[in-house]
Amino acid sequence: MDEIDSKYFKNISNRERTIFEGAITMGALFHQFIGTPVSIENAAQLEKSIENAMELQPCITKVEVRINREILEELKSEFDYVSLAGDMLDVRVFSEYDDSKAVIRMEYIEELKYPLMYIESID
Amino acid sequence: MDEIDSKYFKNISNRERTIFEGAITMGALFHQFIGTPVSIENAAQLEKSIENAMELQPCITKVEVRINREILEELKSEFDYVSLAGDMLDVRVFSEYDDSKAVIRMEYIEELKYPLMYIESID
Amino acid sequence: MDEIDSKYFKNISNRERTIFEGAITMGALFHQFIGTPVSIENAAQLEKSIENAMELQPCITKVEVRINREILEELKSEFDYVSLAGDMLDVRVFSEYDDSKAVIRMEYIEELKYPLMYIESID
Amino acid sequence: MDEIDSKYFKNISNRERTIFEGAITMGALFHQFIGTPVSIENAAQLEKSIENAMELQPCITKVEVRINREILEELKSEFDYVSLAGDMLDVRVFSEYDDSKAVIRMEYIEELKYPLMYIESID
Repeated sequence: MDEIDSKYFKNISNRERTIFEGAITMGALFHQFIGTPVSIENAAQLEKSIENAMELQPCITKVEVRINREILEELKSEFDYVSLAGDMLDVRVFSEYDDSKAVIRMEYIEELKYPLMYIESID
Repeated sequence: MDEIDSKYFKNISNRERTIFEGAITMGALFHQFIGTPVSIENAAQLEKSIENAMELQPCITKVEVRINREILEELKSEFDYVSLAGDMLDVRVFSEYDDSKAVIRMEYIEELKYPLMYIESID
Repeated sequence: MDEIDSKYFKNISNRERTIFEGAITMGALFHQFIGTPVSIENAAQLEKSIENAMELQPCITKVEVRINREILEELKSEFDYVSLAGDMLDVRVFSEYDDSKAVIRMEYIEELKYPLMYIESID
Repeated sequence: MDEIDSKYFKNISNRERTIFEGAITMGALFHQFIGTPVSIENAAQLEKSIENAMELQPCITKVEVRINREILEELKSEFDYVSLAGDMLDVRVFSEYDDSKAVIRMEYIEELKYPLMYIESID
């Protein structure tokens, strides 16, 4: 990894690298899993499986995914499942590079009608 | 293709093959493109690009995609775009094998709260 | 479900319905999960999670997903994971409607360089 | 947008915001479109459609997508198309926030067997 870092990432600080990798993972998570069939039954397992897949990405130490069970209940059709959508997701991606750490958050903001991604904490 | 057909598809009729390939393409289309950023501005181009990509699949002669502009307008947030979702899509997949033809349809059925896929016509 | 069936599916046989629903699910599975980060570590859990998600779809009684561990080992880069691709997947979708049952298979066929979907058995 | 910025993004610099939004878009682009059916025929149109969709995201002023035609030719099976994969893509995302600009790049690095995302330029 050291060679990659010195070749491709010497133009940014540790803190910027932490943000960069965390943000990639959040964008990736959303667009990989939106649309997946989900119900009360498989929600916990889907959360775990999204977490474990996204934790494989560079600099990611932990991912926490929460699928909103109330929305699953409300939307439930005759078919007993729905497609995973942005308003059901609350996600934290923990990113770390060298001495820098950040928590990237995605949450659905009702007033914005938008699943906002932002940096919840950084140091 | 003849060899593939006689090796893998001799257990089904031409009509069943037409249904099979059309249904694969409809399932594929939905799960590939759901989540794509879309607005009034890129909707026509996205429709065309989904059509052309899915027309590459075996036995598919034509695909017609219609993204609901009214929903795009309604949902428009401060961010001026939304994620493509099942309730915005109306799709016809034209599938053909030998002497058999089918039109597979996906449309959002309000009473079902569900983007239903069914066979609109077959002969 | 009876109303939906009589309204939307009266133009096809039970056997055709079984094929239709199984094929949708196979197309959906491929295009939903291709690209997911995967390694030896999360492969078993990802298999299970794909199975459970796709078993939610109409008429699907069971899904079996096998991610090829040898390919995961071969492709392993400095980054210790890869993106899930068609040549790593072997899948069976069990579909059932009324008195009809089918097993839809996807397997990567080396001579075709293609993840072929076909009907492994039907009755 | 000003309110959102002051509420959610006051903990990072303009330069960090530029990196953050560019990185989200690159992660999103990869995981949204990987798996799409592609051939020589629809490649140019697919490039354009990916560009236009991803340019909708916050702070993104331009996206340049290049799908490798040589790989498309090499991989071409009897089916005349392939699934879009990471080794076929070369992408630049132009991100801008206030007085800061960055170009995020994704290119497949042969020695790494990996589609690396990095910051090509920033100021």
